[in-house]
Amino acid sequence: MQDMNQPNHDSALIVNEGIEQPPIVNPYIGNFYKKNRAKSLTADDYVEGILAGNITTLSQAITLVESNRHDHRVIAMEILERCQSHGKESMRIGITGVPGAGKSTFIEAFGGMVTSLGHKLAVLAIDPSSERSKGSILGDKTRMETLCTDPNAFIRPSPSGGSLGGVARKTRESIVLCEAAGFDVIFIETVGVGQSETTVHSMSDFFLLLMLAGAGDELQGIKRGIMEMSDLIAITKADGSNIDKATLARALYSNALHLFPPSESGWVPTAMTSSSVTKAGLKDILDKIEEYFAMAKSNGYYYKKRKEQSRFWMYETINEGLRDRFFDNEHIQSKLSRYEEDVMEGRLGSFAAAAELLDIYKKNI
Amino acid sequence: MQDMNQPNHDSALIVNEGIEQPPIVNPYIGNFYKKNRAKSLTADDYVEGILAGNITTLSQAITLVESNRHDHRVIAMEILERCQSHGKESMRIGITGVPGAGKSTFIEAFGGMVTSLGHKLAVLAIDPSSERSKGSILGDKTRMETLCTDPNAFIRPSPSGGSLGGVARKTRESIVLCEAAGFDVIFIETVGVGQSETTVHSMSDFFLLLMLAGAGDELQGIKRGIMEMSDLIAITKADGSNIDKATLARALYSNALHLFPPSESGWVPTAMTSSSVTKAGLKDILDKIEEYFAMAKSNGYYYKKRKEQSRFWMYETINEGLRDRFFDNEHIQSKLSRYEEDVMEGRLGSFAAAAELLDIYKKNI
Repeated sequence: MQDMNQPNHDSALIVNEGIEQPPIVNPYIGNFYKKNRAKSLTADDYVEGILAGNITTLSQAITLVESNRHDHRVIAMEILERCQSHGKESMRIGITGVPGAGKSTFIEAFGGMVTSLGHKLAVLAIDPSSERSKGSILGDKTRMETLCTDPNAFIRPSPSGGSLGGVARKTRESIVLCEAAGFDVIFIETVGVGQSETTVHSMSDFFLLLMLAGAGDELQGIKRGIMEMSDLIAITKADGSNIDKATLARALYSNALHLFPPSESGWVPTAMTSSSVTKAGLKDILDKIEEYFAMAKSNGYYYKKRKEQSRFWMYETINEGLRDRFFDNEHIQSKLSRYEEDVMEGRLGSFAAAAELLDIYKKNI
Repeated sequence: MQDMNQPNHDSALIVNEGIEQPPIVNPYIGNFYKKNRAKSLTADDYVEGILAGNITTLSQAITLVESNRHDHRVIAMEILERCQSHGKESMRIGITGVPGAGKSTFIEAFGGMVTSLGHKLAVLAIDPSSERSKGSILGDKTRMETLCTDPNAFIRPSPSGGSLGGVARKTRESIVLCEAAGFDVIFIETVGVGQSETTVHSMSDFFLLLMLAGAGDELQGIKRGIMEMSDLIAITKADGSNIDKATLARALYSNALHLFPPSESGWVPTAMTSSSVTKAGLKDILDKIEEYFAMAKSNGYYYKKRKEQSRFWMYETINEGLRDRFFDNEHIQSKLSRYEEDVMEGRLGSFAAAAELLDIYKKNI
């Protein structure tokens, strides 16, 4: 085990016995790698390290929950159960944005302010398309240079590969571990495509949408329905010659938000401006977010939503488990695409096709 | 069989061998009831009658697809397969609205105009909460007096009971039958609560949202995200002293709609005003809808969306089938609520609970 007092922020290099690792390119850690391979941590080791706030152990535990190997799942479950009860008062903030809104620079600037105020911040991500080998870690690290070296920040790139459900499970479990390690503010970032925003929404307390003044083409990059899900819209890049446009956009969005159905929390979403360069507006955004948490905690919505999310994820995991077994069945796999084609071309009804496939599955379970 | 040339619009009174019926209160149809009970229609009879545009047979066939009895499902599937290829160019219009927007009167007025222009209109509904015994049919009928007696309109209340998925399946199958019977415009109405709007959205080509000027409290009645799904917002009750308010609301919503992410179809949603009393604006709304269909057909989106909806419903039905089997399992039923409670109270992780329940199911399948 490395020196426990030295936080290791390079989670890509954290290794763990038996877990598939990205190729190690740093020749200096060869020893470390070997030493760790030889030693397998027990659940007690993990829990103890996490609760002590040890970053190395936290990273290793996240690597463990990201593994799909059965023996890893067993120990991961034990760790999660024992870490479960922490993080009851944390702020889980989902963040997405239109392409070009400068999500990474915003997180860098906003996150730096959050830690400077005494919070411990974990930045997680959900990006089903990410693959470690494609260098997304390096990308994140380069774009968040200051936050990466901030002792009160922990940045973990999106778990690689797998279905959105799989990635979501890993991220949600990572939240539990981070909170047990003392991180009280969690950013859950999404790339903003397809279903990933709704997934982030289902595991965060507050949803922040980053928009650009002028919008237009950038709006193509986000899913419809996201605006109505947002608790706060931040118009980024409100600096220099862009200030007037951003202020106008802020007014437009504020007006539009008032036309939306109210959220169940009783919160009235609003629009604000910010600049990751001048830092203008960042503190106001944090104040607004803290106002939300104060309100949602006092009216009980915060706790209610957390409970509902827990239930949601139980059912979601069951459904995903059932689907996985079905679609992994070799009889289904050999016939599915033909059925799908017949349905799409109108040769076969959707319900008839489904009924036949369910029958095939039942006979070959 | 009754006289085939006399359309029978009172679908509640249509009877069919072996299918559970609402109590028959009209003493004059005693004979009819008996005669039909004795005679069971074959799939050929149904298909022939439907394709000939016979309303009585259409109603009977819908009653058949609404049945969950296995032998009914078998014959229903055959009918559906043979009716499947029709309705390729129809207009399926999903309609929802805030409470108080006057959905029924709008459908009555707008539907009357649609049929007066030579269309054949079927009005279907998705309302998982409806129950026949509670008189929802009578409710609909009373609120749509003129449309009920219109020979070119066919009104069918929401199938009763069951899960949203079950109700959705029945409505989607009813669309297929109505289109095969020559109805080229289909309204699919929803009560606007919970998930039913997204369900309607997944089976319609165009989504119309009815709103009120002033909004406010009425907005509580619709789900967030619906506005961004809408292809057209109609501000109803734009008559008398309300005209100015409605015109202002139209402008506000039009501006807000421009801030939304564009829809994949290339369509730019807009807001319009209408009055079900003076009929002002109704023709403009229809023109706008037809403009959408002309565009979506020429750029291919209409056909693409239909194909995707068919695929969606195949997968959705498979997923629902898998869920039904799981949650109907007696071992799951006896343990589920305890797990759910443990998860919601934070005593057990969502994923661990799901994994345990899936294990229990696997052992007791």
